[in-house]
Amino acid sequence: MHFSLFDHQMMAKAIKLAEKGRFTTHPNPNVGCVITQQQTIVGEGYHIRAGGPHAEVHALRMAGDKARGATAYVTLEPCSHYGRTPPCAEGLIKAGVARVICAMQDPNPQVGGKGIAMLREAGIEVLVGLLEPEAERINRPFLKKMRTGLPWVQLKMAASLDGKTALSNGKSQWITSPQARADVQLYRAQSGAILSTSKTVIDDSASLNVRVTELSADHQQAYPQGEVRQPLRVILDRQRHLTADMRLFSADGEVLVITDNVTPQTRTTKDGIDLPELLANLASQHNINHIWVEAGATLAASFIEQGLVDELIVYLAPKIMGTDGRGLVNLLGLTDMDQAIELNVEQLTQVGPDIKLVATFKQSK
Amino acid sequence: MHFSLFDHQMMAKAIKLAEKGRFTTHPNPNVGCVITQQQTIVGEGYHIRAGGPHAEVHALRMAGDKARGATAYVTLEPCSHYGRTPPCAEGLIKAGVARVICAMQDPNPQVGGKGIAMLREAGIEVLVGLLEPEAERINRPFLKKMRTGLPWVQLKMAASLDGKTALSNGKSQWITSPQARADVQLYRAQSGAILSTSKTVIDDSASLNVRVTELSADHQQAYPQGEVRQPLRVILDRQRHLTADMRLFSADGEVLVITDNVTPQTRTTKDGIDLPELLANLASQHNINHIWVEAGATLAASFIEQGLVDELIVYLAPKIMGTDGRGLVNLLGLTDMDQAIELNVEQLTQVGPDIKLVATFKQSK
Repeated sequence: MHFSLFDHQMMAKAIKLAEKGRFTTHPNPNVGCVITQQQTIVGEGYHIRAGGPHAEVHALRMAGDKARGATAYVTLEPCSHYGRTPPCAEGLIKAGVARVICAMQDPNPQVGGKGIAMLREAGIEVLVGLLEPEAERINRPFLKKMRTGLPWVQLKMAASLDGKTALSNGKSQWITSPQARADVQLYRAQSGAILSTSKTVIDDSASLNVRVTELSADHQQAYPQGEVRQPLRVILDRQRHLTADMRLFSADGEVLVITDNVTPQTRTTKDGIDLPELLANLASQHNINHIWVEAGATLAASFIEQGLVDELIVYLAPKIMGTDGRGLVNLLGLTDMDQAIELNVEQLTQVGPDIKLVATFKQSK
Repeated sequence: MHFSLFDHQMMAKAIKLAEKGRFTTHPNPNVGCVITQQQTIVGEGYHIRAGGPHAEVHALRMAGDKARGATAYVTLEPCSHYGRTPPCAEGLIKAGVARVICAMQDPNPQVGGKGIAMLREAGIEVLVGLLEPEAERINRPFLKKMRTGLPWVQLKMAASLDGKTALSNGKSQWITSPQARADVQLYRAQSGAILSTSKTVIDDSASLNVRVTELSADHQQAYPQGEVRQPLRVILDRQRHLTADMRLFSADGEVLVITDNVTPQTRTTKDGIDLPELLANLASQHNINHIWVEAGATLAASFIEQGLVDELIVYLAPKIMGTDGRGLVNLLGLTDMDQAIELNVEQLTQVGPDIKLVATFKQSK
């Protein structure tokens, strides 16, 4: 397969369009579509929110008659099934598109190559695989859930340069800068669920929702009809410390309180919650692709020890808090340096005065 | 004063030349010189090592007769006194140079404007201040000592991402990568003295000298005659734990063991050493401009608490070592977040897999 420079440019544009939906499409994937006629763009669109039209529909509407004989660039295989909207493959066929280029197949078992087959049967030329790694990257949560049944997990940690998350007396507001906290809002806005503990909710009197006013004007525009999608907030509360008067419950969005999910066979965290089972349930019962974990050192340690974290987001404030402050990860009992948990740093940036790193875990040794 | 683009280019070149001496000139400053005749370089040079010719001498030798009527760009005011070499101002006058541009005056009380005055009296046009901030930057240790009588202090720290410097059993080899350790060699090579403790020497069986073979080929060439300048190693050993058979003493270079410098009036560190007095003595008695501190969390805390650090170099390995590891800075008793010691991050880079930051301390609140 060889794609032209123009093909690359159009697919890159479709991926950029897809990303515009990143705050709103969950649990659907981000999808963008560009339609061209003789190397001119005649239609473009992206999926905005679950239940609304797919990217191809927006692009076909814009193209109108010019879709006949055109090329459609789509970041994900067009769907072939009737969901909340009719299948996009059908729409492309009816519009008379001549050629469809997809970045990747859809691993959704309801699609899984059937969209491509449907297009080919209708005599449309279909090419697959242009900018596939980039297309994978914008839908990591959706793709992981489709492939494994488990959500994609990001764990947030914040500490001083000497790895402290609070002073010995528990004070911690604020270690990181307003800029870092605004960055956290971006991650929350992209997630399907925000997972935390009643301890964090109470200590920080946290509402753990998305505060749109803390996003930049650019990001605020990612909510096209002004309707903010609030991620599900999942709070571990085995000791039943949460009370109905807390800010958590008065803020917009739904709250799921987990008090107990332990069966005799399951291993449990220090909090007495079976995390793998919780994650599987959030995926299957609540249709959650993408979980943003924002809690303390104990829950962080449980997630890390059990290998449940796909991506770690760490904010380090350039401050020294001293030896008696509280540690970042409650892991104990390492006796040899090669037991230390090793990370790959994928991104290293400054956010305001703070250091931010995005990391993944090295495969176990 | 207005300098041309050519003037800027020539001074930038002189500064680059000056930096070539950074491993070898201590306790002298780094100085570079470029001589031009009708916008063509006819001579250039830099100060290589104390006792050897100054930058101007190298450049004048290269220029020969072409120095007559030429312009000399010098990163520091030419000296006016007989030291181990004759005054450079005299050399420039004898060579018939018409114009001298200096980046900055020399704060050395033996020079301090006298070099400039000598040149002007001889009818040479002298301009001062071109790229002065850059010229300051390459001689921070020399300039601090000349201005305050105290050496410039860099404190090195290395830890895991969660701020640990060793496991609870003391194991720490190696937290950081070979690349980070090679970077440390660069800092050692630039320093006038390496300050550590007998505990660090014993725990790491450290020799604390410059191992030239660990430098890159480029940096090895900064030792032009192959003679490596070994910084003075200053080891705090109040408990007299050092023994003559240690690697520290068999490695190249001098060692100064500090067992006690306390007088009844002085405040002492946790180690019982009066650090401000030690620093002042190293400057005045041992002619040290530049100290590289490489020790544990206790000495680091003493330096930080007493405000003795000019620049902090921190290496963070992307590893998690757990809560019972040893902390980065032995500071205790912070009760309010605004007591945390705040830093300005000046540089943030990756060195191999590790994160490196160069920081200064915010002025006290």
